[in-house]
Amino acid sequence: MPVRVVGFDGDDTLWHSETRFHVTQGQFRDLLLQHVRDADIDARLAATEMKNLSIYGYGVKSFTLSMLETAIELTERRISTEDLSVILGWGKGMLMEPTELLHGVEETLRTLSDDHDLLLITKGDLFDQESKLARSGLGELFLGVEILSEKNVDTYRGVFKRRGIKPEDFVMVGNSLRSDIVPVVELGARAVHIPYQVTWQHEHVPDEELPKQGWRRIESSAELPAVGEEL
Amino acid sequence: MPVRVVGFDGDDTLWHSETRFHVTQGQFRDLLLQHVRDADIDARLAATEMKNLSIYGYGVKSFTLSMLETAIELTERRISTEDLSVILGWGKGMLMEPTELLHGVEETLRTLSDDHDLLLITKGDLFDQESKLARSGLGELFLGVEILSEKNVDTYRGVFKRRGIKPEDFVMVGNSLRSDIVPVVELGARAVHIPYQVTWQHEHVPDEELPKQGWRRIESSAELPAVGEEL
Repeated sequence: MPVRVVGFDGDDTLWHSETRFHVTQGQFRDLLLQHVRDADIDARLAATEMKNLSIYGYGVKSFTLSMLETAIELTERRISTEDLSVILGWGKGMLMEPTELLHGVEETLRTLSDDHDLLLITKGDLFDQESKLARSGLGELFLGVEILSEKNVDTYRGVFKRRGIKPEDFVMVGNSLRSDIVPVVELGARAVHIPYQVTWQHEHVPDEELPKQGWRRIESSAELPAVGEEL
Repeated sequence: MPVRVVGFDGDDTLWHSETRFHVTQGQFRDLLLQHVRDADIDARLAATEMKNLSIYGYGVKSFTLSMLETAIELTERRISTEDLSVILGWGKGMLMEPTELLHGVEETLRTLSDDHDLLLITKGDLFDQESKLARSGLGELFLGVEILSEKNVDTYRGVFKRRGIKPEDFVMVGNSLRSDIVPVVELGARAVHIPYQVTWQHEHVPDEELPKQGWRRIESSAELPAVGEEL
């Protein structure tokens, strides 16, 4: 049976995202090392982010607040207001950057949209995601947009129900095994994994927990139109 | 024709929200007055919030980031890291507070849900709004939840389309003339305004811009079941 609906993740599937967090985190590390020479800054920031996830959720604003908190705690309040202002500016800068598409994405979406319904299914901050989509110029190619606070079996089931999608008619495309592949396959739909150059640790899934079938891995979205036939 | 679907705003319609911003803003004013004796702190914070709205969107995280920015700028970086840490804590505290329902809301929703489909239609931060709904205990009463980054004619039209709602079958209930009443009436649906004790300046609409008909004002959600018959 041919796939009718193709769901696309946004961050690091359609447009670059994690590299920006990566770059900012590098600047953060350099800044903090001026105050605390021997701290594992990355580990402390990651721990703060995880601790705050149930309060702040995902996204750049949450990341910014967690950077500020980590900077204050790690330096035992010795960091200057000047430096905190710099961190605040990094967050704002991330939100204002143009949406940079991954190579070949636009052409792939145009090809697929000829005979499939395309849905954008992202997680994270509602305002930031809508803003990125608007700046991407891809909005018109999608029949609908679903921005979820978390991607799991329950929230994908909600999307299928709201949109009247049968799992057998659906394939999800994304870079995260945890968010884009595992829950979708568990619901009886199919998935295509396109790894990104950087993976956030939080999104990692051990090999033994991966589904045995129902999904495949490709290198680039340019391979998608061919895969669609095959799935 | 009887109303089939009733949409409810969340903040300051079902649960208290603006009073919390109000209280925090009072603490912010007191804190800043220790550094800058003669500044119009409320006006400066409001200006920062408006300037940041297109970057941050609505919600507590955005408010927290704007408080930090205002504090740093207004004191010309003289505010201490200690004080900035306090502001960061206020934001987190707001997000962790229990959801406090307005009087009579739960009973009204239970009554209406017997013969209407209820939708929660809020704007703001996706994660924060979902979290508030979960903590409210009202989740099961709603057929669906729509969290919008902005409430206007286009986004309400999107909700009607996604959900297959005809404007004549819909009534929206909320405390904001700008977000809950004006755009809904413009689309040919009806609306009920329940003013809240505090209105954010941004949500104000001049009397002469209010629609002449298609909406009414009541004092409390407890009057809704009776109004429903009449609309």
